[in-house]
Amino acid sequence: MQTDNLKQLLESVRSGETSPDDALVRLRDLPYENLGFAQLDHHRALRNGFPEVIYCTGKTTAQILTIAERLAERSHKVLATRVTPEVAAALLSHVPQAVYHDVARIVVVPGVQAPDEQSLRGEVLVVSAGTADIPVAEEAAVTAEEMGSPVGRLYDVGVAGIHRLLDQRARLFDASVLVVVAGMEGALASVVGGLVSRPVLAVPTSVGYGASFQGLAALLAMLNTCASGVSVFNIDNGFGAGYMAHLINTV
Amino acid sequence: MQTDNLKQLLESVRSGETSPDDALVRLRDLPYENLGFAQLDHHRALRNGFPEVIYCTGKTTAQILTIAERLAERSHKVLATRVTPEVAAALLSHVPQAVYHDVARIVVVPGVQAPDEQSLRGEVLVVSAGTADIPVAEEAAVTAEEMGSPVGRLYDVGVAGIHRLLDQRARLFDASVLVVVAGMEGALASVVGGLVSRPVLAVPTSVGYGASFQGLAALLAMLNTCASGVSVFNIDNGFGAGYMAHLINTV
Amino acid sequence: MQTDNLKQLLESVRSGETSPDDALVRLRDLPYENLGFAQLDHHRALRNGFPEVIYCTGKTTAQILTIAERLAERSHKVLATRVTPEVAAALLSHVPQAVYHDVARIVVVPGVQAPDEQSLRGEVLVVSAGTADIPVAEEAAVTAEEMGSPVGRLYDVGVAGIHRLLDQRARLFDASVLVVVAGMEGALASVVGGLVSRPVLAVPTSVGYGASFQGLAALLAMLNTCASGVSVFNIDNGFGAGYMAHLINTV
Amino acid sequence: MQTDNLKQLLESVRSGETSPDDALVRLRDLPYENLGFAQLDHHRALRNGFPEVIYCTGKTTAQILTIAERLAERSHKVLATRVTPEVAAALLSHVPQAVYHDVARIVVVPGVQAPDEQSLRGEVLVVSAGTADIPVAEEAAVTAEEMGSPVGRLYDVGVAGIHRLLDQRARLFDASVLVVVAGMEGALASVVGGLVSRPVLAVPTSVGYGASFQGLAALLAMLNTCASGVSVFNIDNGFGAGYMAHLINTV
Amino acid sequence: MQTDNLKQLLESVRSGETSPDDALVRLRDLPYENLGFAQLDHHRALRNGFPEVIYCTGKTTAQILTIAERLAERSHKVLATRVTPEVAAALLSHVPQAVYHDVARIVVVPGVQAPDEQSLRGEVLVVSAGTADIPVAEEAAVTAEEMGSPVGRLYDVGVAGIHRLLDQRARLFDASVLVVVAGMEGALASVVGGLVSRPVLAVPTSVGYGASFQGLAALLAMLNTCASGVSVFNIDNGFGAGYMAHLINTV
Amino acid sequence: MQTDNLKQLLESVRSGETSPDDALVRLRDLPYENLGFAQLDHHRALRNGFPEVIYCTGKTTAQILTIAERLAERSHKVLATRVTPEVAAALLSHVPQAVYHDVARIVVVPGVQAPDEQSLRGEVLVVSAGTADIPVAEEAAVTAEEMGSPVGRLYDVGVAGIHRLLDQRARLFDASVLVVVAGMEGALASVVGGLVSRPVLAVPTSVGYGASFQGLAALLAMLNTCASGVSVFNIDNGFGAGYMAHLINTV
Amino acid sequence: MQTDNLKQLLESVRSGETSPDDALVRLRDLPYENLGFAQLDHHRALRNGFPEVIYCTGKTTAQILTIAERLAERSHKVLATRVTPEVAAALLSHVPQAVYHDVARIVVVPGVQAPDEQSLRGEVLVVSAGTADIPVAEEAAVTAEEMGSPVGRLYDVGVAGIHRLLDQRARLFDASVLVVVAGMEGALASVVGGLVSRPVLAVPTSVGYGASFQGLAALLAMLNTCASGVSVFNIDNGFGAGYMAHLINTV
Amino acid sequence: MQTDNLKQLLESVRSGETSPDDALVRLRDLPYENLGFAQLDHHRALRNGFPEVIYCTGKTTAQILTIAERLAERSHKVLATRVTPEVAAALLSHVPQAVYHDVARIVVVPGVQAPDEQSLRGEVLVVSAGTADIPVAEEAAVTAEEMGSPVGRLYDVGVAGIHRLLDQRARLFDASVLVVVAGMEGALASVVGGLVSRPVLAVPTSVGYGASFQGLAALLAMLNTCASGVSVFNIDNGFGAGYMAHLINTV
Repeated sequence: MQTDNLKQLLESVRSGETSPDDALVRLRDLPYENLGFAQLDHHRALRNGFPEVIYCTGKTTAQILTIAERLAERSHKVLATRVTPEVAAALLSHVPQAVYHDVARIVVVPGVQAPDEQSLRGEVLVVSAGTADIPVAEEAAVTAEEMGSPVGRLYDVGVAGIHRLLDQRARLFDASVLVVVAGMEGALASVVGGLVSRPVLAVPTSVGYGASFQGLAALLAMLNTCASGVSVFNIDNGFGAGYMAHLINTV
Repeated sequence: MQTDNLKQLLESVRSGETSPDDALVRLRDLPYENLGFAQLDHHRALRNGFPEVIYCTGKTTAQILTIAERLAERSHKVLATRVTPEVAAALLSHVPQAVYHDVARIVVVPGVQAPDEQSLRGEVLVVSAGTADIPVAEEAAVTAEEMGSPVGRLYDVGVAGIHRLLDQRARLFDASVLVVVAGMEGALASVVGGLVSRPVLAVPTSVGYGASFQGLAALLAMLNTCASGVSVFNIDNGFGAGYMAHLINTV
Repeated sequence: MQTDNLKQLLESVRSGETSPDDALVRLRDLPYENLGFAQLDHHRALRNGFPEVIYCTGKTTAQILTIAERLAERSHKVLATRVTPEVAAALLSHVPQAVYHDVARIVVVPGVQAPDEQSLRGEVLVVSAGTADIPVAEEAAVTAEEMGSPVGRLYDVGVAGIHRLLDQRARLFDASVLVVVAGMEGALASVVGGLVSRPVLAVPTSVGYGASFQGLAALLAMLNTCASGVSVFNIDNGFGAGYMAHLINTV
Repeated sequence: MQTDNLKQLLESVRSGETSPDDALVRLRDLPYENLGFAQLDHHRALRNGFPEVIYCTGKTTAQILTIAERLAERSHKVLATRVTPEVAAALLSHVPQAVYHDVARIVVVPGVQAPDEQSLRGEVLVVSAGTADIPVAEEAAVTAEEMGSPVGRLYDVGVAGIHRLLDQRARLFDASVLVVVAGMEGALASVVGGLVSRPVLAVPTSVGYGASFQGLAALLAMLNTCASGVSVFNIDNGFGAGYMAHLINTV
Repeated sequence: MQTDNLKQLLESVRSGETSPDDALVRLRDLPYENLGFAQLDHHRALRNGFPEVIYCTGKTTAQILTIAERLAERSHKVLATRVTPEVAAALLSHVPQAVYHDVARIVVVPGVQAPDEQSLRGEVLVVSAGTADIPVAEEAAVTAEEMGSPVGRLYDVGVAGIHRLLDQRARLFDASVLVVVAGMEGALASVVGGLVSRPVLAVPTSVGYGASFQGLAALLAMLNTCASGVSVFNIDNGFGAGYMAHLINTV
Repeated sequence: MQTDNLKQLLESVRSGETSPDDALVRLRDLPYENLGFAQLDHHRALRNGFPEVIYCTGKTTAQILTIAERLAERSHKVLATRVTPEVAAALLSHVPQAVYHDVARIVVVPGVQAPDEQSLRGEVLVVSAGTADIPVAEEAAVTAEEMGSPVGRLYDVGVAGIHRLLDQRARLFDASVLVVVAGMEGALASVVGGLVSRPVLAVPTSVGYGASFQGLAALLAMLNTCASGVSVFNIDNGFGAGYMAHLINTV
Repeated sequence: MQTDNLKQLLESVRSGETSPDDALVRLRDLPYENLGFAQLDHHRALRNGFPEVIYCTGKTTAQILTIAERLAERSHKVLATRVTPEVAAALLSHVPQAVYHDVARIVVVPGVQAPDEQSLRGEVLVVSAGTADIPVAEEAAVTAEEMGSPVGRLYDVGVAGIHRLLDQRARLFDASVLVVVAGMEGALASVVGGLVSRPVLAVPTSVGYGASFQGLAALLAMLNTCASGVSVFNIDNGFGAGYMAHLINTV
Repeated sequence: MQTDNLKQLLESVRSGETSPDDALVRLRDLPYENLGFAQLDHHRALRNGFPEVIYCTGKTTAQILTIAERLAERSHKVLATRVTPEVAAALLSHVPQAVYHDVARIVVVPGVQAPDEQSLRGEVLVVSAGTADIPVAEEAAVTAEEMGSPVGRLYDVGVAGIHRLLDQRARLFDASVLVVVAGMEGALASVVGGLVSRPVLAVPTSVGYGASFQGLAALLAMLNTCASGVSVFNIDNGFGAGYMAHLINTV
């Protein structure tokens, strides 16, 4: 609650329009709903126009269905991430309008209200180093798309054959934000970061074996990039990068 | 070199305006200068209007002085980061117009040409958790300022006394990009990330002791943030976050 | 065996009331029972009024059943933790009065004797950051309850939406001890620790992905908390925190 | 600000006793002082009767002197921890009533007001495994003492000669809270935890060599203790354990 | 081949008793048998009287059967370690005289020849901290027994209830070598090492959860023991400790 | 594209032989094929005569089949590594001329064209420490063989019975490059490196338990070898070493 | 205190020979001396005939001098380890009969009483891989010597030139216990362990650079040795290995 | 000693030309010199024509001088690596013909005999990512040069400005072996590995800060390279790569 609203409320208490008890209620009015196992923040979409997101890992199917149902009743749009095929099947039969992006492991429940008009900078370009990185890249791409950004995809352009990347320089230069998804040594983030002058969001993946230590090698490499304008997300966190890409892409 | 420029060059070769040899020279014209120990990229400022940056760690004073001199001759502006007081003294006596920001450990050599007009979104707000994080916070703040962004500072508002932060919510909401600098457990990034709907750039610092493992604790915490819209930089990398903040702040 | 008891025994040896051989037996009288694969400490409940606890991981079902049976014969109350559904079924059919708390993964065998009257300070409040942290939170809550403390629960109030937590400040202030259970970046422990002036027991969970490294990120964050009055338990060790909470809660 | 106070304020706004603007001021009234590099929380002592604490590592001497001076003007008592001899000398010449505990590396500025009467449970007993652990043990002991708890000390009773510890069982049993400080393998925490039925606060130290990895070995050992009723602090964090010990020791 | 044997061979070459070609053969005479996938060292038992050992992990069942068969044909005795129930069944049907110790996961094929008389110091005592450590403890115990040492067992005497251990001091003092098997914090090795003056062989186990990191906590604790006379083996390496215990136990 | 070709192209543009648009096409002419999920580099075999390689981990069976088919249509030879039996079956039924090396987990599709004549130095010798290391050793051996090198194999000659290795010194000395594959402590690489004066390529394997940490122990050991002439590959990366061995083996 | 002694004491209480109070004193009679900062165990030498050891790291010079003085008054012999030249000078001027072994960093104060006759198995052989490992090797050698074992030394026989080691096989075979000291990859322990059939005590050293991580590489290698009969000590812990070697060497 | 030589010796024993005692001497004739603290391998240069190398870290100046002197008396050439300026001064005054390469930290003592003619493939090209990597790059370059290879240098061509590297493709293609030296994220090794078809030797450096963890980030990145034909050396081990580069460069 911001200062202006607070002052209005106090004025209305002085004027007698609002009783102290009512004001207390309003000050305490929960912008979220308590399900016991979850506190749903219905206010968030209202605050910033973005969809509500359910991170499914560690939640029971029953919990996910309940949360999705409650959110769908009130919110513009719902995204569920890390949805297994089993949970996706349950969601789709439970919430008929839901759509499953299987490679991205995302279920989207379309909102009934139009989102606020957002002024966008341009295209978010999602770049992946290898074929095995595509699920994480798609998680980023679908997230940014569902938030409202146009999204381009450029997959399997890792540095082992750098001409594949260099030939696409025009697409790299044209993007307003770039998401670079790479496992193994994660070098693609540095190379892209050195080519463009727009923000690069680097997502290490757990693709690799042995001394990749489930993505640690790529994570450390990206954090230590010699290129400027590169920031880093958790291993396999395509959602986080897609979300941030859209934030940056809105003027 | 982008497609359009390349096509123009080829047209001018066909028209005879440019000879193949000259075209070859132009295609090969090195946009950098070879000092043996360093390849200076004079083209970069021309490409994107940003200052050249010298990361001083691991370079000898003689190397730093030579690089600074060559860059200052051609470029708009030079930033040297991680400048020790000794190197700063040498730089200031060598390049008279240079200025030393001692807390930020940055030396700036002002450029002779005005940078391109940049359309900016608003203010970059640099937030630090503790007093000991200020050198890293200042590195971020001075970097963003020297690149052209207005910068606000909000220091020592760590989560142990969260009302200090909450009372400044208006300033947090007003920023177009936020840099959050925190050591120890790095929780400030998540809390700020949960409050605002603009991009948050999180910089872990090596402040802390014992099981902070020189900033590893804060780094991992920031990578695992439960808030959306937070990306992460290397430990103590204030420069990286300040640079990225300005990139995002330019429309 | 404490000094007073030892002196009484020696006095009774001098007086002839107790023979040296009997004294030797009593000094050697094992307060535990040797099952070969386990040494059961029947004396513990007698010493401190607390239930006996069987940590089931790594024990065979047969071993667990035998231990539970022997303890149930003599002790006030038995707690078995980390009980899989299969082992729970075996326990419930073997020890009919046993009760299974499935979310907490705890089986309780109620004691036949009333525990000593314990003077309690107030309520233990168990707070969880997310829905996926609830199994660990419940392990803490059930443990403290079964030891005799009243327990409150406040779940899914992580820092990404900090107003959910701040609205519950009254409950936080009223608790005599707080258990904070959080995965990912574990920031909730610091925020709660900064709000209250009673002991906070922080339990990192393995909830998270990638660079959470199975709870390491939250563990390090909690150890490095900038708040005072926070101590830390092993990853997912809800039992440990619930036990300690009750210890602190007894005057 | 708790609910009761908030309601009183709103009542007084309705009655006209307080104007909305004044209420706004009071709601915004900062309980801390902004020094630019630090936000001093003068309200804290008022809130909970505990001393203010300055953690000196990473702060300049000038910053420490300014903070100490401002706090000493208003607060009951000031503790500065991790004070080097140089900073201690500066503090003692700057704040004449200050006292330096050199082994504990703590400077205390005595408060002018008596603290609230605190009802205490008993004695805090600080136990150290070796002679080299004493600085950390003293940091814990002095902290708890300055907060108001009586403190006992039992040093150099590591498990390599366990009869030294067992002979002191009476002292262990009599304590209301125990702080166990140990480096190397940190086994003392488990042994003490297995002997007593009061809370044990375990502090790993960086004492050891090679594979102690600056205290990591003792930290992990304490987190994995097989004893119940043991919680853990950061490596070398004697202050944290002393503070928590006093919290637990107040009824 | 030792100097004496070498000289005899050379003498026999000079005398013409042995031809250079034969000598070459004998110098090259392989004391092992090449199966392609394995080089069996038939000479080892001959050299030191100890059984041959097959470490089964990573070998196919076919490979294990072949190796066991070849060794059984020539050697005194064969030990196979880390034998799964499936492989054990195959071995027992293939080599009828084989015996399976299921808790220890060891199959023994008894030798046809009597081992050399070994002069032994006394009893090897295998001590375990918990019930879940017993498989590793049994691996050590069975190994030492099969090599020829008398072995005592003392299980579930971890430090959380230290009187269980102290009551067995006589058995500890009487052993000639002690193997201490413990997971979690591994403190038992230090406590036993502080009590006895005979060699203690410490085996960390992967028993524990969270920050035990699959036995790392116990391993580091044992390496950093404050007791003298304690050496350490790989995590869960009961075989190694049992083997070494017998080596030390032979005069 | 090298300078000479570029100049020829520009000359042909001036002469009118090539239109600027055609030149643009040729400059952009992709030497690879875009399948959406993969960018196939058909030019590579043409560039260096080596087979194309499909690293199967993380790719779907459908993706692997498509890639193999496309490559087989154009290339000399295709190698697929880390092929599970299921994928191998699919490949063999899809591409009839394919051959499965099951221990090495490699499928080879023979090329229709003869490779360029390569001048070779001699034999690549693949040495393994244990039986369990053979799958990785075979991956190296089959890779080098399929690239064109003669390959020798020397398995199960680990340092625990060093005479098995020393007896084969002649074979070690005769090799032109050696691949040493070892898990556990990886000492074999140092011992071989100390014996020979040709390049040694060391491959740590994940064979081992406990503190081998899935091959980390062997990896660190090999990186720290005291022998000169030893370089290191990722854990279990037999393919990488076999490929490099052939590169070195070609004059 | 063992059972026999306890029974005698109880008998003497019954007979009136000893009063209960005296018995209590005797049961509590401290076999150590409390210096406040240290609890000296004067009983230890009496118990096992071994010298008292002062580990100097982390102790002040004043503490070391006091401890050495008190121990020297009562004990057979004192060893101080990790003695810096400054502390050694102080010790030698304070305790005139003390002797400084500077490479081993050990000060010995000779005892006034003859140690018990110890029956020894043979020679302890200390083997080092490199010249830089000698300080740790000497710590082991001097420790074993001062405890009473004859000690041989074999230095700089690392595996990079394995014939240097193999030529000394006779000395290796003759030793009753071997201490192997090695940094870098630590392979020497495995090679020696594979050659001999007596116990090998492996000490990793912090010698090495980069990925040796201060001895971690050698430590992990030694823990993962493929040879049987090898146990491991903390990094640089020559004292521990020398002590254990003598324990094993006494029959 | 190879088979042929051994057979000749045996023949000469049979013929009486060599007595058994003489043969024994020759078989035992040490190809190295025992200095107590070092075993000098004079035979090595004879065996393979390479210089002797003294790794100075951890050796005393006196030890280094003695070793250098003894080697210089007999060997072709001596290389001392990791030579501090102080040790270099001592070496140069002690061995007048010695030469100090200060950036590479190498002292060379020229040999008196000409090395064997070596047939070389071509040029070794040493490539560095940044200016701060030059000392390690020079260690590689000087080592390969002193062993006999022609060496090219290409410094400061890191991937942040990839056109600096691509413009030098001709030099990259022309090299017979490439050494790539890079700190931070180490991406240069992958990019170079993807461009060339000759062996690439990757050396991670400790250049970087924060999460580079002293070179760990670059090391892991290089081990996980997606390019084929890249092998890896220890952090900062320029010597190792230079040595290997020459081995590969000799036909």
